[in-house]
Amino acid sequence: MTNTDHMVNGFDMATLGSLEPELRSLVSRRAALLGPAYKLFYEHPVQFVRASGVHLYDAEGREYLDAYNNVPSVGHCHPHVVEAVSKQIATLNTHTRYAYEPLLDYAERLLSTFPAAISNVMFTCSGSEAVDLAVRVARFYTRGTGVIVTNNAYHGTTTAAAELSPSLGSGVALGRDVWAIDLPLAKLAVGSDVGHELASSVRSAIADMERHGVTFAAFIADSLLSSDGIFPHPKGFLGPIAKAVRDAGGLYIADEVQPGFARTGEAMWGFERHGVEPDLAVLGKPMGNGMPIAAIVARPELLEEFGAVSRYFNTFGGNSVSIAAANAVLDVINDEGLLENSRLVGEKLRTTVEEIAAEREDIVAVRGVGLYVAADVVSPRDGEPDADLASRIVNQLRERRVLISAVGRAGNTLKIRPPLTFSRDHVAQFGEALDDVVSAIR
Amino acid sequence: MTNTDHMVNGFDMATLGSLEPELRSLVSRRAALLGPAYKLFYEHPVQFVRASGVHLYDAEGREYLDAYNNVPSVGHCHPHVVEAVSKQIATLNTHTRYAYEPLLDYAERLLSTFPAAISNVMFTCSGSEAVDLAVRVARFYTRGTGVIVTNNAYHGTTTAAAELSPSLGSGVALGRDVWAIDLPLAKLAVGSDVGHELASSVRSAIADMERHGVTFAAFIADSLLSSDGIFPHPKGFLGPIAKAVRDAGGLYIADEVQPGFARTGEAMWGFERHGVEPDLAVLGKPMGNGMPIAAIVARPELLEEFGAVSRYFNTFGGNSVSIAAANAVLDVINDEGLLENSRLVGEKLRTTVEEIAAEREDIVAVRGVGLYVAADVVSPRDGEPDADLASRIVNQLRERRVLISAVGRAGNTLKIRPPLTFSRDHVAQFGEALDDVVSAIR
Repeated sequence: MTNTDHMVNGFDMATLGSLEPELRSLVSRRAALLGPAYKLFYEHPVQFVRASGVHLYDAEGREYLDAYNNVPSVGHCHPHVVEAVSKQIATLNTHTRYAYEPLLDYAERLLSTFPAAISNVMFTCSGSEAVDLAVRVARFYTRGTGVIVTNNAYHGTTTAAAELSPSLGSGVALGRDVWAIDLPLAKLAVGSDVGHELASSVRSAIADMERHGVTFAAFIADSLLSSDGIFPHPKGFLGPIAKAVRDAGGLYIADEVQPGFARTGEAMWGFERHGVEPDLAVLGKPMGNGMPIAAIVARPELLEEFGAVSRYFNTFGGNSVSIAAANAVLDVINDEGLLENSRLVGEKLRTTVEEIAAEREDIVAVRGVGLYVAADVVSPRDGEPDADLASRIVNQLRERRVLISAVGRAGNTLKIRPPLTFSRDHVAQFGEALDDVVSAIR
Repeated sequence: MTNTDHMVNGFDMATLGSLEPELRSLVSRRAALLGPAYKLFYEHPVQFVRASGVHLYDAEGREYLDAYNNVPSVGHCHPHVVEAVSKQIATLNTHTRYAYEPLLDYAERLLSTFPAAISNVMFTCSGSEAVDLAVRVARFYTRGTGVIVTNNAYHGTTTAAAELSPSLGSGVALGRDVWAIDLPLAKLAVGSDVGHELASSVRSAIADMERHGVTFAAFIADSLLSSDGIFPHPKGFLGPIAKAVRDAGGLYIADEVQPGFARTGEAMWGFERHGVEPDLAVLGKPMGNGMPIAAIVARPELLEEFGAVSRYFNTFGGNSVSIAAANAVLDVINDEGLLENSRLVGEKLRTTVEEIAAEREDIVAVRGVGLYVAADVVSPRDGEPDADLASRIVNQLRERRVLISAVGRAGNTLKIRPPLTFSRDHVAQFGEALDDVVSAIR
């Protein structure tokens, strides 16, 4: 058995010989120690030794513009987060089985950003653990097991989360009780309202699973459909799905690992843009600006019986240091107006990419919301997805020390997703680099 | 449905009214925000605001002797770890898809403490994620699903790990392909060699699962059987199990989350004491002294096909800051001779508890290895487990500001497991407190 599904923008070990000697030796050593499951980004992997704001630096002191990383969402090594972590780790770092007021202060502050009905939070270390817990809770509550996902979804890496992640490729089996629905990608890419079409697919999937004796438990989707190709428009298209899910007695789980914490510039959470009130939401990546912390939030009635019969303890989940980091992240989002920055600078970023795309036939369907912009790379001949060309753009930007990646079922979608502190000047630099790269390709 | 399996040493919300007003309000607020799955330790929960070495401090500045926490294994807020984390978080905190030499240096250093055949490591955030990944790898490699655990095992909190954790109680279903073997507790408690008896139970479980059409994949156990009641003796009793597992074509997974990183004082890893060479081992809790980091280590052939067809990426797994913490932990273990300290001070701790037990009929079967000491609390009338008395001892020690807990299938096993920097003076303080508490009970 071999896998034909390549990771988008993954380094291919078969090209090891093309690397300069020092990097080649590092990459070989890495493969020997970590094994073959670990992939590097880029044809020419990068090695960083320090970072600050929206910049990363390699060992030679060369500066890279980060238009990709959404974990250090308030900027790499943000001084306020650094100070909060450094202070806390020197003071106390313990778990949730001792009473600890800052944990509750943070919980309250976080929950205040959700609809009132969502008033419980449980902390984990990773988005994968949070997805796993959310689905575990949903299955317990509904007494069902069937879960519906989108057909290039990524929800994580635990056994249960990987079974919900078709984007991992054919080598990772979907769960027997997981149904993946097709998406009308072409319509989504240009922002057609496909809400009723999607709801109809969900209803069909529910009928099919019930026909197979599987009881429906939940629908889960990233509120920006990130790994499917990043589809933010039109606002509201997820609403009909939520209704179809509720009509069938299932739960709607919003995966906010990517859209959450102000990424969209329009709302703190991606589901808000769709007028959806999820039953459960999953938070992760940017929550602690790189410190491991993630969570589920839920309507309390969903946790009532689950909590009564199954205690939950996650040794590092909600530890004092991660809570300090997460609290500092909320400070920075507020103090630096990052929701608004994401909206305004994101708009500039999108129009910049649109202007470049307007001159060409191979970059189409530019779309985005906040500092999350995507565009499809296609063959000008027939309009078909051109993953190779997308890869060339990503890799030539990397040679110009500008970091982005690609995503989507066909691997041809450029993914531009900088820290939320990206400025108009950074957009201008990015636009110049992208223009140069694609002009040279023409 | 209600759960009759109480958490050992968990605070009972029904007794909320007995708490002083400020704590009562904090505990109520906690329940409202975090939901019912979150439990607190002790009848009278503790609230800490700072910690240092083997001490924790509450808001009034009162000092507590920590004879329980194994996560801050090199001591709370150890300055070397604090410095490593503070420096790293101000410099760079990123993921494993960029080449990063310190990750490899740490991987190499960690792997050098394992048998030569175990030469790959994969990083996760939590022990739960590591157990989940180890079992996922084992199932992929063997094409089986059946897993054998001990009958009060705890292996974690993801869906797949919870299915391997009978100690979570009857509210959490074991997996359909999970077999839990009984342990001869009375014999284990006094260090009888039960290796062949255990191997026979494992062989019966394998036969039973195959009879049900389930293919055997792996056996997993904590190398100290911690949640089963802490059974370190005699050395070698896990050896016959490993042989039975291999004979049946399965893999032996050593859960080293508790025994690992020098806890036993006799070896870096618990399996070494048993002459077992595991196929996979799972590391966690003390690995980063509280910073979220965990790992699996494996023979590379087990990862070969898994890695080729299923990439693995854990956003925070092996992040730069957690790696810096983990590296600092190895420094401290070496520089402060904590393996030897655990052995020598652990011996003193065990003999101290033995001396107290020798005067009484209700504390029996004192056992331990390194700084991990256990004793069973029984009724002097009939020798039956007395969980209530164990709980009184734990809670009265807490009122004397000494922290331990209880564990085991009957909940009557005292669990004494301080940071590895515990000194003879701390043992003396602990012994005095324990003596006072049990004398008052007599």
